Amino acid sequence: MAAMTVAFQGELGAYSEQASREFFGRDIDVSPSPAFPEVFDKVTSGAVDAGMIPIENSLAGSIHENYDLLLENDLHIIGELKLRIVHHLIANQGVGLDEVRRVISHPQALAQCRDYLRSLKNVTVEPVYDTAGAVRQVKNSGARDVAAIASAQAAVDYGLTILKSGIESNHQNYTRFLAISREPRSETGDKVSIVLSLQHHPGMLFKALGVFALRDIDLMKIESRPLTGTPWQYLFYIDIAGSLEEQRIQKALDHMGEITTLLRVLGCYPNGRIADGSSVIVRKSSPGGSS
Amino acid sequence: MAAMTVAFQGELGAYSEQASREFFGRDIDVSPSPAFPEVFDKVTSGAVDAGMIPIENSLAGSIHENYDLLLENDLHIIGELKLRIVHHLIANQGVGLDEVRRVISHPQALAQCRDYLRSLKNVTVEPVYDTAGAVRQVKNSGARDVAAIASAQAAVDYGLTILKSGIESNHQNYTRFLAISREPRSETGDKVSIVLSLQHHPGMLFKALGVFALRDIDLMKIESRPLTGTPWQYLFYIDIAGSLEEQRIQKALDHMGEITTLLRVLGCYPNGRIADGSSVIVRKSSPGGSS
Repeated sequence: MAAMTVAFQGELGAYSEQASREFFGRDIDVSPSPAFPEVFDKVTSGAVDAGMIPIENSLAGSIHENYDLLLENDLHIIGELKLRIVHHLIANQGVGLDEVRRVISHPQALAQCRDYLRSLKNVTVEPVYDTAGAVRQVKNSGARDVAAIASAQAAVDYGLTILKSGIESNHQNYTRFLAISREPRSETGDKVSIVLSLQHHPGMLFKALGVFALRDIDLMKIESRPLTGTPWQYLFYIDIAGSLEEQRIQKALDHMGEITTLLRVLGCYPNGRIADGSSVIVRKSSPGGSS
Repeated sequence: MAAMTVAFQGELGAYSEQASREFFGRDIDVSPSPAFPEVFDKVTSGAVDAGMIPIENSLAGSIHENYDLLLENDLHIIGELKLRIVHHLIANQGVGLDEVRRVISHPQALAQCRDYLRSLKNVTVEPVYDTAGAVRQVKNSGARDVAAIASAQAAVDYGLTILKSGIESNHQNYTRFLAISREPRSETGDKVSIVLSLQHHPGMLFKALGVFALRDIDLMKIESRPLTGTPWQYLFYIDIAGSLEEQRIQKALDHMGEITTLLRVLGCYPNGRIADGSSVIVRKSSPGGSS
């Protein structure tokens, strides 16, 4: 049987690849993609079997572009994974920490290592497209004054050296990833993600949350997003504890439909396990071409 | 009397400068700052009289770093302004649109012009530190194949040419700015911003919103942010309609204090007016040094 193929944003060695393998299995085929819309496009067209997208980081908050893309695309959330994010400072072989003058990485990784970066003297930071791409850039430049912040996987892939591990300001650094697919999950789950919009009347959100509270349904997350084209009107992305097979959940969603101007179920799936982020694979052929 | 000094993030010509002048007056002195924490630091230390920070864009959503900084710093919101954001494609004098191969700007400006940028053939985009800085970079490079996305003010300041105006995907593009100060506003307002956290029990947010709903107090905005160090626990930033001088608002805040683990009033201020974003000033000395 052919392995399934999973699309993610970023290059080989990105945290999203690690999440994909932790969720779908180490031996999947992966499809690195330049941006999030491409991940959704590949899943929609059938070019891949599934996608893996980060939706929220425990320090930096939600990845809003992916909330917007969940609404724009007609896909289903089939599962989630919480990946512990361990950031490493990575440089060319033989480079010492005192030689580094510039650190490049994804803006969110730079923000998450803010305290460590501030402790370095005479070092400037520069945002780039993604973490693994930053490592490739360091490798290709051969520079001794540039380092990247990325995963251990990226350091292994490109044969570079890790100057310092665990440089994130807060070690309670987890990213929650969602697995997305064309078809909803066939088995039931214990978490339901929905998106809704409300007319702007006083007390409307209170009413909407009452739909769940009055049925003792636990709200696990609420996120507001601007409703494009109507300034200061919002969409609400809500996760509730429960299964679509439960009558009280079905009744609650029916009830919610009475008071919303838009309501969509994005998926029902099991609460995600936590992966400790320590797994690294050795590739048959390295993206760095050096091993 | 000396003019007041207002700090903002970005270089001269940034949208935040425009917001500062629209709110505090055209003749203020301004203090451009490399990053948001510096704006808060300058206000806190008394180096400037006030700061002007973007908090939310009608298309892209909230600027979360500034929500975090409002909590970390002991400052007060004294007012708000909604600035219409009009993006322009700006290049060196004499450059034609067909020569442009690379477009640089702040990541949010690039995202807001995504549709227009996709319509250009063979053009790559590159995120940089801020919009006005992108214009300076184009000017200093003298390049004919690079353009910046920024305000008309930045084009005027650096004496560059506007290739195309109004290139934002959605013209309902407003950024809401907050004016921050060491002292709370002396006069009353009609909007109160608070931040709170709750224990994680089913129905807690419903209870919290009930404090306002049961008193017919209108909720104008709710935003959730991760509570740093405690994964999947959230802070809620809430704007309500009302004044701190009203008894029902005071009673509601007292009531809220009974059920929250943290509660802070960030400010009470008048609902902000909308500025159409068309104002441009002519400086005595240009930051570009060319006029």
